[in-house]
Amino acid sequence: MEIGSGRFPEPPYCAVIFTSRRTQGDRDYTATAERMIALAAGQPGFLGVDSVREGSELGITVSYWRDEDSIAAWRRNAEHTEARESGRRSWYEAFVVQVAKVERSYAFQRPPAAQRP
Amino acid sequence: MEIGSGRFPEPPYCAVIFTSRRTQGDRDYTATAERMIALAAGQPGFLGVDSVREGSELGITVSYWRDEDSIAAWRRNAEHTEARESGRRSWYEAFVVQVAKVERSYAFQRPPAAQRP
Repeated sequence: MEIGSGRFPEPPYCAVIFTSRRTQGDRDYTATAERMIALAAGQPGFLGVDSVREGSELGITVSYWRDEDSIAAWRRNAEHTEARESGRRSWYEAFVVQVAKVERSYAFQRPPAAQRP
Repeated sequence: MEIGSGRFPEPPYCAVIFTSRRTQGDRDYTATAERMIALAAGQPGFLGVDSVREGSELGITVSYWRDEDSIAAWRRNAEHTEARESGRRSWYEAFVVQVAKVERSYAFQRPPAAQRP
């Protein structure tokens, strides 16, 4: 995971904020989640993704896209559609999807000399 | 942490996506992070916050605000300003702040009867 300036283009671009709480048990969740990230990375307009989960509790995944058309095309992807159905059928207790337009951003990167103050 | 419909107003509203990587050692980080969430929750226009970190690795915090004015006022808060300075001085290797406007959202909540299929 790369954090810092230069990772994304200048705003505006789109972010999909996916906040979720899992059910118990894996049932192919982990493998599918990894597959979806790899598959998304190959889609036109994909800019990046960050995903963090605390055990089986709260998870936040933010994927970044060039524009709304890129998001719509990814949503129509057959394998992604099937994964979303499995999500509702068995993997998630609850989730919220929020589609947002990033309007500005700024980044901080610790200078190497100051890494261990 | 509450996930699901009814948590937020209808879009549009604002999201601040804070993605970060920590340095080693706590140095008051945990206490200050908790204090900042409590303090933010008392600000005008605050809608909610979700925060997840995997150990000392990647962390994602998304705070939600009614409008840009609410974000600007929170940014001017003296205690928050001081915490941001500590963040650059010692807590973070790197971070990115992205300010976004949420344009649409949808939520899923598993029905109680189907909780354990």
